Order: sequence, then structure tokens, then C-alpha cells
Amino acid sequence: MVDVAREAGVALSTVSRVVNQDPTVGAEFARRVRAAIDTLGYRPDEQARQLRRGTSRTVGVAAREMSARNPVLAEFELGAHASGLVVFGASTADDVARERAVVLSMAHRGFDGVLMEPIGTDHSYLAPEIASGLAVVAVDRPVSGPPTDAVLSDNSEGVRLAYRQLAAHGHERIAYIGDHERIFTGAERAAAFRACATADGLPLDGLVHSGETEQARISAAVRAVLSAEVRATALVCGNVTTTLAVLAHLAAEVPREERPAMVGFDDFPLAGLLDPPLTVVAQHTSEMAQAALRLMTARLGEPERAVETVTVPVSLIARGSGERPPAR
Amino acid sequence: MVDVAREAGVALSTVSRVVNQDPTVGAEFARRVRAAIDTLGYRPDEQARQLRRGTSRTVGVAAREMSARNPVLAEFELGAHASGLVVFGASTADDVARERAVVLSMAHRGFDGVLMEPIGTDHSYLAPEIASGLAVVAVDRPVSGPPTDAVLSDNSEGVRLAYRQLAAHGHERIAYIGDHERIFTGAERAAAFRACATADGLPLDGLVHSGETEQARISAAVRAVLSAEVRATALVCGNVTTTLAVLAHLAAEVPREERPAMVGFDDFPLAGLLDPPLTVVAQHTSEMAQAALRLMTARLGEPERAVETVTVPVSLIARGSGERPPAR
Repeated sequence: MVDVAREAGVALSTVSRVVNQDPTVGAEFARRVRAAIDTLGYRPDEQARQLRRGTSRTVGVAAREMSARNPVLAEFELGAHASGLVVFGASTADDVARERAVVLSMAHRGFDGVLMEPIGTDHSYLAPEIASGLAVVAVDRPVSGPPTDAVLSDNSEGVRLAYRQLAAHGHERIAYIGDHERIFTGAERAAAFRACATADGLPLDGLVHSGETEQARISAAVRAVLSAEVRATALVCGNVTTTLAVLAHLAAEVPREERPAMVGFDDFPLAGLLDPPLTVVAQHTSEMAQAALRLMTARLGEPERAVETVTVPVSLIARGSGERPPAR
Repeated sequence: MVDVAREAGVALSTVSRVVNQDPTVGAEFARRVRAAIDTLGYRPDEQARQLRRGTSRTVGVAAREMSARNPVLAEFELGAHASGLVVFGASTADDVARERAVVLSMAHRGFDGVLMEPIGTDHSYLAPEIASGLAVVAVDRPVSGPPTDAVLSDNSEGVRLAYRQLAAHGHERIAYIGDHERIFTGAERAAAFRACATADGLPLDGLVHSGETEQARISAAVRAVLSAEVRATALVCGNVTTTLAVLAHLAAEVPREERPAMVGFDDFPLAGLLDPPLTVVAQHTSEMAQAALRLMTARLGEPERAVETVTVPVSLIARGSGERPPAR
């Protein structure tokens, strides 16, 4: 920066003000500084700048999978970028230890905030980071331990909508296949399903299949449901990974006329182009992203404000697969 | 760290060695230091550590869209993590200025390397960063300007495979809809298509539609192709976004019996569950990810090694949509 000041013929403090985008610098001085920066190939040292300024304007996103389609995180990133924040994402891979490593590495690198899809049931490791000023916003699932802002979907209402749609179309034995119940959304959705079935006076045995979202486990669950003595005629799928695995299994192994009616939790591109088009419970992803960005911005601006949880409604989109009568 | 040393009753240098995972520290000393760290809630300052050590073991991924499905980047991240690297991703949003901002912000934060899907035709801004030791690996598209390692797909061969499959099934008028030709892959694939059509003695006018991958533009292209005096009976789609937009348009507006035969560039989940199942040119994503990781690791270990480009083959997966005879 000393070299830049000499080349531009200005004071060192002027260079600093231009680099930090101080709008009070005169246009001619700013032009000379930028020309000198170009001539000398000066590279600002973000790390040193952060250490001096105490803020990095950087927010991390700790997602289940970074390179997976996630419209909430995509829109959050877009909005955060428009607000002048730099956003870096990393995958937690559904692993408790990896989440801790990812989030702590963001905190120790001086990130100002972290938007996270929390895993597991103990986030006490966040407490000292939050105490040191890290802004934490949870999305999809709450943090367990220190209170943080959170944006959640109305999971119970979503499962009720799915169940009632199938029941309204004549299904008397409806099964559920979904995520592992150590995942908060997996637990909420399975519990809501059990409540629906119990309210209808149905026995639960053999109807609720929660677990890992791997093809083999889900194929086994579909087989169990369809080969039971009293077979289910309809399925609620607890998340999009489960839905895709169920569809793959049905396409490969189950004759068309024996396939159950079906409602999936979460919408996705192509759901309407399947045969039959897939009825889904859709999360309001845009509303969730905007709420997450609002909470993050508010927390960064006012670290001491009261913690807030936003629960965003869901909607049923009837397309055909959930409106088929029982196969037999 | 001074407090930790006092609490543990060891020298400051011992604390430093434990924090930096020096294996030569005696077990009892290491235990005492870790206990003191827990007691005092000591948080290592990654920024200060990096400034001292000169390496961050951090690699950035500058992707077209961070929260979109990208099996190459997902597998790269997994492998990099297994190699002890921290990976942070950010979106370039197909914007030249944003790419520059994202990559420079990674470089100025002390990231050791960047895996990028380059946009645009001028990456001269990378030259000073590479000179300062930043490891850059390009994926999908090459960097324009400073020579860097790159992993590319065999785009031309992919388009040839698609074209020949359609021609072999009786199609004499085949159209192409794809990405904007300012994108390297868009340009390569459109050029390969033109070469195929020209070799067959076909006129090109009205058959090649490259541009933005927005629904409105792609719907207009499909309409133009299908309403031409001599209409095309088959389509090559230049990338997955185009394929999805074409499918959405056909489902909404074109009677089943008038839909063209079709081959898409890039495979995706559900492609085989569509009606008809979609024939695609599949990139070898796992091979691409492994090559990218190998090049990144090699460059980090040996900054002066010769620059390398790996071109990964592609395959045609025939599923039905590309094997239909001309509609009429």
C-alpha cells in the first residue's frame, strides 16, 4: 500500500480509504489510486483487513450436501450476495463430526455468520462461538442447545395434508417411508404420520419405515409394504431422496397396475412430467430463503436481539399420483 | 495460548506444538494441554495460524451454481475432504464479474487452491494470483489466458454420438438447442453439431438454436423448430437445463404424437423414468472428479509442475427417446 500511495502521489490513508470503498474520497484521487493499483498489481490482504476491521462480511452455509439442488440455499446465497455479503458453502454430509468441523472452521476463519442445516442432538459446541459473536441461523431443523434463530417448515401439517389427500381418495391402509428419525425432520414427519394413522384407528405395525435414505433400505421397505398380508394401497414419502428411490424401485420391480398411490414430501423439477404426475407437499422455498436472510441480516446488525423461529407453511400440489383409487 | 500454557503448567511452545498436532509431543503433556484448552474454552485463531504457516489446506470451488446438483463437484469435495483439505464453495452465477470477485476473494482469504468452472474469455486476472502460488484447476471449461490444469469432457464426440444415434434411426432433419456460445461448452457443442449437419449435406438455417438457458427462449426455439416448413423430427439438447426446459415445453404444448425424438447432453436422476425414457450422452462424472482432485493435489504439492489437460470420454445411454422413428 505504501508503494501504491507513492505511485499515485497520495497519502497512505487515501489508499486505505479507496481500498475500503470510502465514498468521501474525491473522484480524481480515487482514479489515481485505482490506476496505481492496476499498474503495481497490488492485492489487498483480506485476512489482515479482517483482523483490523473485525468483520469479514462473510457468511458460511453448512449444508447437508453443497453440490445438491437446494432452492432455499440457492436463493439465500443470491439475496446475501445482493446485500454485499460473501457466501461460502461446505457440506456436512449428514455427519455430526463433520458438521462440527465445518462450522468451527468457518468460525475460526473469521466468518461473521453461519446458516446451517443442523444435524444431531447436541450443538453445545456452538455456544462459545455464539458468545464470541458468530451469528447462527438454522434452516429446516433447529439447533439443539444454545438458542438460535431458525426457519422451519410446517412438517406436521405437510404430512397431514398428504395423509388426508390419500384417505379422501379411498385409501384405508397408507404406509410411510422416510428419513432416519435422528434427523429432526425425519422424526417430526414420522410422528405426524403415526398421529394421523392412530387418529384413523389404524394399527401402525409394518406401516412406518424410517431409516437411512439408501436405495437398498428403501427398496426393502417398499417390498415389505407391498408384500404384507394386508398390503398398503398408498404411500407417503418423507423427503425427496426417499421419493426418488421409491420411484426407481417401482419402475424396476413393480407392474404398473400394482403400484400404490403416492404423495411425496418436497417438490422437484420433473415431478409433474412423471407418469403418473407426482402429487407432492411443497415447501415454500422462496419464503424460507427470505426469512433466513432476514434473520441473518438482523442478527449480524443486532447481535443481542431476541432469538426468533419462523415456521413457514406448506402446500399440497395435486397432480395425479395421490388421487388414484386403491389398486385392489 | 499463554493462559493455556499457565493452566497446563507447560511451556508456550508445547501448547503451540499440541495445537499444530506435532506428533513428537509426549502423551502426558498433550493430555494436559488439551484439558487446559477445554477448561479455558481456548479457540485457535485460524487466520493468525495461516498467516504464520503460509498454508490454509483450504480449497475453493467456484461453481456456476453452488446449490445445484453437480456430481463432479460433489465427488471432488468428498475426495478433497478425505485428503485433509477444507472445501468452500461459492456461486459465480454465470457472471464474469461475479466469478472474478468470488475467485479473488478466495485467493485474498489465503485459500491454497481454486477449482473453477470458468466463464468468459478473459481470465488474465488469475495471472498474479497463480504467480503468488494459487493452485487453479479448471473443470468443464478451460481458463482463457494463464495456462492452468483442466479437466474437460469430450464435447464434440458427445454431440457426434447424439447426432449419429438419431440419424441411424431414420431422422433426416435434426435440430440443436443448447447453451449460449459465449460458454465454452456451448460453443464446442454447437460447433460439433454444425460439423455433423454439414457433413450430412444439411442446410443449417433454423436448425441451431444456442442462447440463454431460460424457459422462454428455449420454448421459442422448440416452437420455431417444430413450426418450420420442413420441420425437424429430432432434437439434440446441449445441456441438462436445456433438456428440462424442452421437456417442460413439450409436456405443456405439444401433443404426444407430434413430439420429436430427442437426445440430451448430460444424464440426470429420473431421466430413465420419463415417458419415453430419455436417451442421453452421459459425462463420466466420477472420472472427472478424480482427475480434478489428482490435478489439484499434484499442483498443491508441486507448484512448478507442467500444466496438464485431461479430456474425459463420454458415453451414449440409449433409453428410448432417441430411438423413435420420425413422427411423420
